[in-house]
Amino acid sequence: MTYVSDPAAPRIAIAGATGAVGNTLIELISSRGLRHRGVRLAASARSAGRTVEVDGRAQVVEDLDGFDFTDVDLAFFSAGTSVSEKWARPAAAQGALVIDNTNAFRMDPDTPLVVPQVNADVLLAGRPASGIIANPNCSTIPLVRLLQTVEQRWGIRQVVVSTYQAASGQGQHGIAELREGSALALSDPDAELPADRFKPALAFNVVPFIDKLLDTGFTMEEQKMLQESRKILGLPHLDVTTTCVRVPVVNSHSEAVWIEATEPVDRAELVGRLAALPEVTVHDKDTPGGFPTPRTAGEPDHVHVGRIRVAPHNPRGFWLWLVADNVRIGAALNAVQIAEYVLDRGLL
Amino acid sequence: MTYVSDPAAPRIAIAGATGAVGNTLIELISSRGLRHRGVRLAASARSAGRTVEVDGRAQVVEDLDGFDFTDVDLAFFSAGTSVSEKWARPAAAQGALVIDNTNAFRMDPDTPLVVPQVNADVLLAGRPASGIIANPNCSTIPLVRLLQTVEQRWGIRQVVVSTYQAASGQGQHGIAELREGSALALSDPDAELPADRFKPALAFNVVPFIDKLLDTGFTMEEQKMLQESRKILGLPHLDVTTTCVRVPVVNSHSEAVWIEATEPVDRAELVGRLAALPEVTVHDKDTPGGFPTPRTAGEPDHVHVGRIRVAPHNPRGFWLWLVADNVRIGAALNAVQIAEYVLDRGLL
Repeated sequence: MTYVSDPAAPRIAIAGATGAVGNTLIELISSRGLRHRGVRLAASARSAGRTVEVDGRAQVVEDLDGFDFTDVDLAFFSAGTSVSEKWARPAAAQGALVIDNTNAFRMDPDTPLVVPQVNADVLLAGRPASGIIANPNCSTIPLVRLLQTVEQRWGIRQVVVSTYQAASGQGQHGIAELREGSALALSDPDAELPADRFKPALAFNVVPFIDKLLDTGFTMEEQKMLQESRKILGLPHLDVTTTCVRVPVVNSHSEAVWIEATEPVDRAELVGRLAALPEVTVHDKDTPGGFPTPRTAGEPDHVHVGRIRVAPHNPRGFWLWLVADNVRIGAALNAVQIAEYVLDRGLL
Repeated sequence: MTYVSDPAAPRIAIAGATGAVGNTLIELISSRGLRHRGVRLAASARSAGRTVEVDGRAQVVEDLDGFDFTDVDLAFFSAGTSVSEKWARPAAAQGALVIDNTNAFRMDPDTPLVVPQVNADVLLAGRPASGIIANPNCSTIPLVRLLQTVEQRWGIRQVVVSTYQAASGQGQHGIAELREGSALALSDPDAELPADRFKPALAFNVVPFIDKLLDTGFTMEEQKMLQESRKILGLPHLDVTTTCVRVPVVNSHSEAVWIEATEPVDRAELVGRLAALPEVTVHDKDTPGGFPTPRTAGEPDHVHVGRIRVAPHNPRGFWLWLVADNVRIGAALNAVQIAEYVLDRGLL
């Protein structure tokens, strides 16, 4: 973390500092050397009063109720949708630019939804009317980072995605529940497993249900991937359909992505274009190790892509397999990269 | 197991009796009361000499090398593709009708590929020219049991499948490796995990690679699902494309299935037609528990279907989520049901 006295450097607040994404935000602000004039921590009453280490020093988490944002330039929110719904607009009204990690404002027309590698230019219009910039869903971010180049070169007719989402999408409690359930199941196959964050229990299971069910029969998580992709890519009729599934992986989401383009796709050109994208690693060796998995992908700040193959019977259709760290790329890193873009261009 | 002196009852042999599928075959022949005049067990040299319990009595496994099939009417093979390649044709030449669980003969034009609920009528033509009936791949069987009714009512334009396949697809050694790796990973996050059956290790991971890689970039497992579906359904141009992924589940495969029909699909009619299929359970409640998972699906001899939903933007497109016990429905049960069909109709 780089404290500077430069009055152009922002005063930062982090709401939700005690969670998995909040912890990673603090780590990334430090490791990436984001210049600032101080970081304050906030949370809802339940977590206020705890201490969190910031750059090696224990710092007390303040209560969002009564928190004064008038001296804050940049506020990261990652304490859940209901917390953002309650406190993000007041923070923005007090003058802070809010970067919100939740679902609260993503589809708000006054709030840009930003993946810096894809559509950062929407930020050049200046401070959003809502005072908020929204961070997309963890599964949407890596997907749109790959879709943009496909759309520009070949056009997209349809995208069909099945996800393999990690326990860390439910934060540290989700990880703990998976670990506890797995240990129990190993010691006693008939044990009743904890099923609070995941229903039914996730240990040695796959659960095709994330977030709540909508009238359409799709889950909110599945609808997010459609609506957010359309907004980020500026393609209001983009056809993305998804089944979102939780898998017993600790961290990093995977996605099996089928894309039908409007033009025939040359595989070598596709591989070359994906490999040329910023912070994307293509795994394209013919060995069994030549594809990414959550535990072996490597560089956590890259989107990892493998199993790239055009259908023999349909030269417009191809598969991708992507793996991305959902806490970093899918949340905290994307938020910090939004902040870097804003600060680098003096847009605060 | 029902031993009878009726000369119409078959003398049975089971090659691969020591494996997960072989064990389940023995259990099913017994629990379903398949009439027979004795069961002999066989295996390759590595496993010969072991004893396996048949109907409560320990029975010695004989060596396939030198095994005399002249007194066998019905021979189940589930000892791996290379064993079937070597011994299934000699067994058939000696007069046994072979029901083969491996990939060795599935695409052989002289060998019917049968899912009894779908295309048992191909068996009415009499003893196959090869003397062999092939059992399809574990992921193909539950899929085609659902596709047939969709094709007949609405027509199928395209099927896009992502699988979530259990460790038991690699038999008892696969299950043991998952359990051992999971225990190690829980006790030490940096432990090197066993990766013999699954590469990289499967514990707390998902591995998008099953069987070997083909020149097309697809795996053999993925190609099987296309070619076998076409053969079973008698639709040589059926468009099925797949990503096959191993997940850290002990038993039961799941599949996220996107189907684009040629006609608009009425969801209620679709649910009704799927629910009316033999040995299929539709999970269609609006609660978070209203979908099947490998650990909670219930009745192991049914194909379980849930998350049935038509895309709001495309009335021809819909998703299914299916769960099926890969050792039973995907292998042993299908083989026993083939035998039952053959015996019931006096086709032996």
